[in-house]
Amino acid sequence: MNTLQVKLGNRSYPIYIGSGILDQSVLYARHIKGSQALVVTSNTVAALYLDAVLENLRSYKVAKVILPEGEQFKNLEIINQIFDTLLVNKFGRSATLIALGGGVIGDMGGFAAACYQRGIPFIQIPTTLLAQVDSSVGGKTGVNHPLGKNMIGAFYQPQCVIADTDVLNTLDDRQLSAGLAEVIKYGLIRDAEFFGWLEDNMEALLSRDKKALALAIERSCINKAEVVAEDETEAGVRATLNLGHTFAHAIETGIGYGEYLHGEAVAIGTCQAADLSRRMGWLSDSDVDKIIALFKRAKLPINPPDSLNPERFLQLMSVDKKNVDGEIRLILLKAIGLATLPVGVDEKLLRTTLESYRN
Amino acid sequence: MNTLQVKLGNRSYPIYIGSGILDQSVLYARHIKGSQALVVTSNTVAALYLDAVLENLRSYKVAKVILPEGEQFKNLEIINQIFDTLLVNKFGRSATLIALGGGVIGDMGGFAAACYQRGIPFIQIPTTLLAQVDSSVGGKTGVNHPLGKNMIGAFYQPQCVIADTDVLNTLDDRQLSAGLAEVIKYGLIRDAEFFGWLEDNMEALLSRDKKALALAIERSCINKAEVVAEDETEAGVRATLNLGHTFAHAIETGIGYGEYLHGEAVAIGTCQAADLSRRMGWLSDSDVDKIIALFKRAKLPINPPDSLNPERFLQLMSVDKKNVDGEIRLILLKAIGLATLPVGVDEKLLRTTLESYRN
Repeated sequence: MNTLQVKLGNRSYPIYIGSGILDQSVLYARHIKGSQALVVTSNTVAALYLDAVLENLRSYKVAKVILPEGEQFKNLEIINQIFDTLLVNKFGRSATLIALGGGVIGDMGGFAAACYQRGIPFIQIPTTLLAQVDSSVGGKTGVNHPLGKNMIGAFYQPQCVIADTDVLNTLDDRQLSAGLAEVIKYGLIRDAEFFGWLEDNMEALLSRDKKALALAIERSCINKAEVVAEDETEAGVRATLNLGHTFAHAIETGIGYGEYLHGEAVAIGTCQAADLSRRMGWLSDSDVDKIIALFKRAKLPINPPDSLNPERFLQLMSVDKKNVDGEIRLILLKAIGLATLPVGVDEKLLRTTLESYRN
Repeated sequence: MNTLQVKLGNRSYPIYIGSGILDQSVLYARHIKGSQALVVTSNTVAALYLDAVLENLRSYKVAKVILPEGEQFKNLEIINQIFDTLLVNKFGRSATLIALGGGVIGDMGGFAAACYQRGIPFIQIPTTLLAQVDSSVGGKTGVNHPLGKNMIGAFYQPQCVIADTDVLNTLDDRQLSAGLAEVIKYGLIRDAEFFGWLEDNMEALLSRDKKALALAIERSCINKAEVVAEDETEAGVRATLNLGHTFAHAIETGIGYGEYLHGEAVAIGTCQAADLSRRMGWLSDSDVDKIIALFKRAKLPINPPDSLNPERFLQLMSVDKKNVDGEIRLILLKAIGLATLPVGVDEKLLRTTLESYRN
């Protein structure tokens, strides 16, 4: 087992990465202070791992909430089921919430923990590659609004993250690829060497080579932890983690949550961001080709849906959190391994990308 | 105009107290950084003060949300109206939310600001005595849940508080008295001298003597600011501000939000807490008499509703935020001017108070 530390002063916490660590009850005991624990999970994950987690919690008063699966259920209405269960069980401020699942469960569980009685401790057990490398690191929690993704939320840090690489064995291929989209992102925004490693090891990752996966997760988490430690509340460099995400959120909101996996939308959005970066004169044609080729090899979609026309794209992109006073601002690439901070973009160039980018 | 500082490191903020300061546009300009502002208010308050506030915001892009009046609307469903308006107007992270109204508007506006895009700046303009002396100071924000009051929320500090004493002229008598309940509380928990001053000046306060009101507001805010500066997230001494509130929340939840004003429920709950403190051997009979007499003179109710029997009271009190692992814990009084930290209480004594306290 490897342990990374996310350094955030008195909100610092460890990320445990390793094989079979879901069953190490010592990890739970180390981070649960009170006598009550609520496990929040989803249908699919409950069938696979809920019993194993509950086994580690036998000495606590335990309750559970099983939520419906998918981004379309990540909203204020569904999160109320968590509050209901906490209240019906008379759980207090010392209760610990354990989010066992993918990114949606982590985001909702974390936000519920942030809000219940104005904040209770929580533990993340991410069960998808995407959640392990991205959503469980850095304390972004929240839910969607019909008018925009992740528009309601909080910055709220967990007590620890338990990333068990074994759970990836039960992940379907589409989910694995979606996770790889965020892994590739770290290479693109700040780690050119890692991007090169991914080019050399994509087939190993897709065939679930344990060593390759563990390395990719660790390297991704190190990158993210460094960025978050530098800028917890996204006043600056943290925004670079949003490469491709403004396009991606527009796709997810515009097509309806649940149609695309988040990682799939990020893959498309990152290709669009790369195209726009080329038009800005920053990336070469061959850089863009390399980026698109790697997403393709990761079995990810790279073209936006036909049903979203440029006008609708612009409209949806206009409510992004990075925008300032209504101006659309994007993270783009100066080179492979070097992202910009949010930049206001020439609307003509952006339109050209939206109208003409196809591969 | 007097300015108090709430000292919370990089989240410190000023409370402005004075006559006619709602119209001082310089206060707004000093604390609004971006170009967008959303005013959140209620029907009654909008009719009285919305135009005056909007007059100060002429150089900004402004939107408004007018919410229904009362504690029964302080929930996740209604708060969505704020998110809707922010999103429809494409307001970004640099937008400022201005909560203009009583405690409910402040709590909801503050919580919406805490959650929108994971946090935008906000300004409190409290328009009731209760909001000026209590809910607008200290960063507690949130909404109710059918199973418990203020169970969903955040600690989130405003940029400033503008407490205009003139607005109290339009407050009805019942609301004025409700505010006095929290004013008396500060005397009881940590300021015996202030309690004595209130005994001498209750009639002046009820007749809305400007000098007396300004002094009561300032002294209350100083007391609250000191407590909050010492313990922002209620890990310790801040809980003493909850004197009488566990009983009060049980009354509000049990009878249904809206029947009692919050201050009225607090008056009853504080009398119950005083009764229990006497049974614990801490207050004398004459202390309890003095306390009850002052609430009576403030034209506040002092007896719990007949429809709440002791069993139901206990059940409702069992979900309070101060409870630890299911044990009911209360703030009681060691003397007038000295509160305890949360203490586990003998259930028999608590039952005796619930069964027999009547005045």
